[in-house]
Amino acid sequence: MSAGVARIFVPAHVTGFFSVHDSTDPLAAGSRGAGLTLTDGATVRVERAERFSLAVGGQPAEIAPVERVMRAFDVTPRIDVETDVPIGAGFGLSGAISLGAAIGLNRVYGRERSENELVRIAHAAEVQSGTGLGDVVAQHRGGVPIRLEPGAPGEGTLDGIPETATIEYISFGELSTADILSGDTGAIDRAGASALDAIRARPTLAEFVRVSRRFSRESGLETPEIRTVIDDVEAHGGQAAMAMLGQTVFALGSGLSDSGYDAARCEIASGSIHID
Amino acid sequence: MSAGVARIFVPAHVTGFFSVHDSTDPLAAGSRGAGLTLTDGATVRVERAERFSLAVGGQPAEIAPVERVMRAFDVTPRIDVETDVPIGAGFGLSGAISLGAAIGLNRVYGRERSENELVRIAHAAEVQSGTGLGDVVAQHRGGVPIRLEPGAPGEGTLDGIPETATIEYISFGELSTADILSGDTGAIDRAGASALDAIRARPTLAEFVRVSRRFSRESGLETPEIRTVIDDVEAHGGQAAMAMLGQTVFALGSGLSDSGYDAARCEIASGSIHID
Repeated sequence: MSAGVARIFVPAHVTGFFSVHDSTDPLAAGSRGAGLTLTDGATVRVERAERFSLAVGGQPAEIAPVERVMRAFDVTPRIDVETDVPIGAGFGLSGAISLGAAIGLNRVYGRERSENELVRIAHAAEVQSGTGLGDVVAQHRGGVPIRLEPGAPGEGTLDGIPETATIEYISFGELSTADILSGDTGAIDRAGASALDAIRARPTLAEFVRVSRRFSRESGLETPEIRTVIDDVEAHGGQAAMAMLGQTVFALGSGLSDSGYDAARCEIASGSIHID
Repeated sequence: MSAGVARIFVPAHVTGFFSVHDSTDPLAAGSRGAGLTLTDGATVRVERAERFSLAVGGQPAEIAPVERVMRAFDVTPRIDVETDVPIGAGFGLSGAISLGAAIGLNRVYGRERSENELVRIAHAAEVQSGTGLGDVVAQHRGGVPIRLEPGAPGEGTLDGIPETATIEYISFGELSTADILSGDTGAIDRAGASALDAIRARPTLAEFVRVSRRFSRESGLETPEIRTVIDDVEAHGGQAAMAMLGQTVFALGSGLSDSGYDAARCEIASGSIHID
């Protein structure tokens, strides 16, 4: 069964902490860690076309993993993306668009793949492009995913924090995921492993933000600008941490606006279950 | 962190076909099969109380797996459930209430369990009560779950059909899950295994309804009343099947109303990803 046009919403995913797990098999490679999926995200519109085109917010865009997904299907679609969140700022947008594209191409071209197969295609495209390691599996799960074991469905395993909250965020620009992941990740991996132990022992949102803040310091990824904002939120009695990997701070509840920042606001994305 | 009151929505789950997998370990026991999660479901309100009470639609109710969940937490909550769907008619309502109760009790009593732990508690309560084998894990996943391997998180594995649709349903009454599961399930298990092979080869909604219809005949579970309704829908060019286990017919799109039936209507529940 094929459809003329498919439209897929995929939530943004803000990673709080992670550790890198390499493998020659892109389905087995990935990351451990935890993050938040958000009601802000990407809406990916896919239709058949004579020539491939990809636009984000109406502007032509080049996103390597999306091109890999397209080549996996051997098609030339038109893909138009609308998004609430900035590119390259730690929202897992390349993963969201890659996953939305995989699901949309499956529908539009009537390919009859299972959902796990589509997640695997998008995850492998991200890993091979160096643009992400854990966003796709987290975005597919929804809620507050804990990535216990790295990799795509069939390889990795997930748990979650059974809570929800309003989330505020503010972005000051990009960090290159590919540059950081291709460097020495020793400090990141040690801090990430320690944070995962802590969140497994106490899987709550408050603990998630607390250990994420500690991770951003211990990993050396926290920039002076980010540090100032997080310290401000904490001084006002709030909880905030840095989005990995971007110049972005996220806070529980009204933590950023309470400190005088002009922050965007959304909710944690539900999976099938809605928690009030 | 504990809250005064928690309110959890859990989708209904209509199983199309299944096979039974016994185990002395309730976490490993369960079923293979596939079904639909729905935007209709149960909203479970949990608060602390001096004495345990459970009401569905304002009426006192006894639901064995919910009492098991409560005993797992060793608490005496007040639980009030509102639901769109009938009890005992193949919508997985005992599973939905058990899962909602587990998540709600965790919040209200500040127990800090992970989401997988809560799913395991609700799954085990259903298995031990004989009220369900696969609803809880399906409801936790959302979308159109395929239960590849039986059991709770850590034991079972799931895939899904990456499509959505409007669903109509009509119910004529109850079937006892416990009575059927405690009898000889040989015909059910053979028909269920064959249906799972078919859906793995072609994971689409149209194939799901087609093999579910075949399952209800081959398993011997299809009643004359159900048969008449499904035949009517098919005669009008639609697709319908029987909800396992209840005197309920579900149809894709407007299949039931097109055939003159006064059917309820809802959508397939999204996981985190919304497919238009």
